[in-house]
Amino acid sequence: MLQTLPQHLQIAKVLHSELEKVEVIFSRQLESDLAFVNELTEHVDRYRGKMLRPTLLLLTAMAVEGDPCDGAAISARHRTIATVLEMIHMATLVHDDVLDEADFRRRGATISALRGNEMAVMLGDYLISNAFHLCSTEGESSLNELIGSVTNTVCEGELLQLSNRENLDLSIETYFEILRRKTAVLVGACCRLGSVISNAPDEVVDAADRFGSNLGIAFQIQDDLLDLLGDRDTVGKSTGRDFDTGKLTLPILLYLESASPSQRERVLGVFEARDESALRRLLVESGAVASAYAQAEQLVEDAKHELRVFPASSGRELLYSLADAVVTRSS
Amino acid sequence: MLQTLPQHLQIAKVLHSELEKVEVIFSRQLESDLAFVNELTEHVDRYRGKMLRPTLLLLTAMAVEGDPCDGAAISARHRTIATVLEMIHMATLVHDDVLDEADFRRRGATISALRGNEMAVMLGDYLISNAFHLCSTEGESSLNELIGSVTNTVCEGELLQLSNRENLDLSIETYFEILRRKTAVLVGACCRLGSVISNAPDEVVDAADRFGSNLGIAFQIQDDLLDLLGDRDTVGKSTGRDFDTGKLTLPILLYLESASPSQRERVLGVFEARDESALRRLLVESGAVASAYAQAEQLVEDAKHELRVFPASSGRELLYSLADAVVTRSS
Repeated sequence: MLQTLPQHLQIAKVLHSELEKVEVIFSRQLESDLAFVNELTEHVDRYRGKMLRPTLLLLTAMAVEGDPCDGAAISARHRTIATVLEMIHMATLVHDDVLDEADFRRRGATISALRGNEMAVMLGDYLISNAFHLCSTEGESSLNELIGSVTNTVCEGELLQLSNRENLDLSIETYFEILRRKTAVLVGACCRLGSVISNAPDEVVDAADRFGSNLGIAFQIQDDLLDLLGDRDTVGKSTGRDFDTGKLTLPILLYLESASPSQRERVLGVFEARDESALRRLLVESGAVASAYAQAEQLVEDAKHELRVFPASSGRELLYSLADAVVTRSS
Repeated sequence: MLQTLPQHLQIAKVLHSELEKVEVIFSRQLESDLAFVNELTEHVDRYRGKMLRPTLLLLTAMAVEGDPCDGAAISARHRTIATVLEMIHMATLVHDDVLDEADFRRRGATISALRGNEMAVMLGDYLISNAFHLCSTEGESSLNELIGSVTNTVCEGELLQLSNRENLDLSIETYFEILRRKTAVLVGACCRLGSVISNAPDEVVDAADRFGSNLGIAFQIQDDLLDLLGDRDTVGKSTGRDFDTGKLTLPILLYLESASPSQRERVLGVFEARDESALRRLLVESGAVASAYAQAEQLVEDAKHELRVFPASSGRELLYSLADAVVTRSS
């Protein structure tokens, strides 16, 4: 997802090698003496996608270091906590598959489709448990406390989202509150932790957190747009899931905000009838899709603006291009 | 579930008051700024049953203290960790409801029946997350590490159980391995933590752990027997669930162990046809039920034997009677 200019190749190489180490820690932590459990977790490896969360944590740490940045910017603790955050994210993906009854994700069959909901629930629990266990091996309980507090909020966000399923009166405010809790807090925590572990000053830590939060919301809006507009082969997972599960996303909410009573009735009818292509057409033609996309772009700009407190460096440049990629990606 | 002799009334009173404090910590930890989440967790309160895990932790701490034992034996840390363990247990109950499709538990409708599987998954996650968060507020990461390692094993036990569903060749050895991981390790940890936090010597801590582990296995065997033999109104949750979900329990395994080929065929036919009353009759008449019950009783005796390293005290007496209650209970 990252475009790397020649002058940033060195740091991109460091990042790549650090992400490989994160993968090793990930697999090692999940290793069980039960062969059956190992087979299951090997299947989870196929869920692996962009490694956005570890990437953000590691790049933030590098940006704190500034230039010249070599592998020394990244400590064992950075790698461990990056792995913890990826494992938590993976657990939410596995449990989301129970939630959304998605049939495909990352071009592979989901755990729940392959082995039933019950296996997906327990496998997700295994990931959560291992994430907290791995975190505690750092011997620094403030890390457990911060991450535990973040996951509390993530769960609240998921619960809030579920309770608003099929709620045709969902406000834009509540929509953003769901995104804040469900996504932004965790992505913000990646950047916060990357800089905290690097002993960055408070001002930098808080800015890093805001950078991640804004990026997380933009990421989620783009996800919703891809779900609405993308085709399954490009996106790599089921599309139209939000639609199937009665989840109102930003383009619909923006359309409803300025709709006349008759327009409102029309879009809700299309939504309730699950007429996906009619809905897509309505939302594109009315400009609601463009407006949602503009909001995501603005959030990326806001995010990038936060990075001004970081020293100019290759690490910061890579964070900029990562931020841009969030809204330009097609999968 | 505890029978208290007059000479132990004082310590039973202390226990009761400490359990009330645990309930307060439990509710306070789960409090959210979202009204909807609070409604959900209030519903979880109805899952509350015997508080076996906090009781074991607190009583073990009292038994370490010996007589005279007043409230001073119990520190804030005991209460916090007792709450953590109850919260983890509650999470497994909520997720088990997704697993077993049980319709009733503790005489109330389950979360999954009331609100759908997806809500039960997320609510269970909220409980797990809060348990780890609460644990980390103690500022002692060895506690997080021990509990995280225990929950890893619990999840492995659940996965092992799921993978052996409908496995008519399940060995008694694997059956006990499932129980050890799924139940014994957590119950053992309650007693381990109660004594560790009281700074008991290693010999006492290890004995406490073995006491809890044996008790946990006995408890699970009794649970299986109640599921087979009890009626729903007495047991307070759905019975016959093991049967419905194809879970082979100890009486069936004991029957199969000494069955002739034709007997084996008969019991497996009855099991596959889900003829609950025929299975019950077969297992009672063959003595398999009595034999399973005898194994549970023996485990309780083994458990009690471990307590010899504790000083004679009211606390130890209450642990003895709690152990006995595990196999005499009818709910």
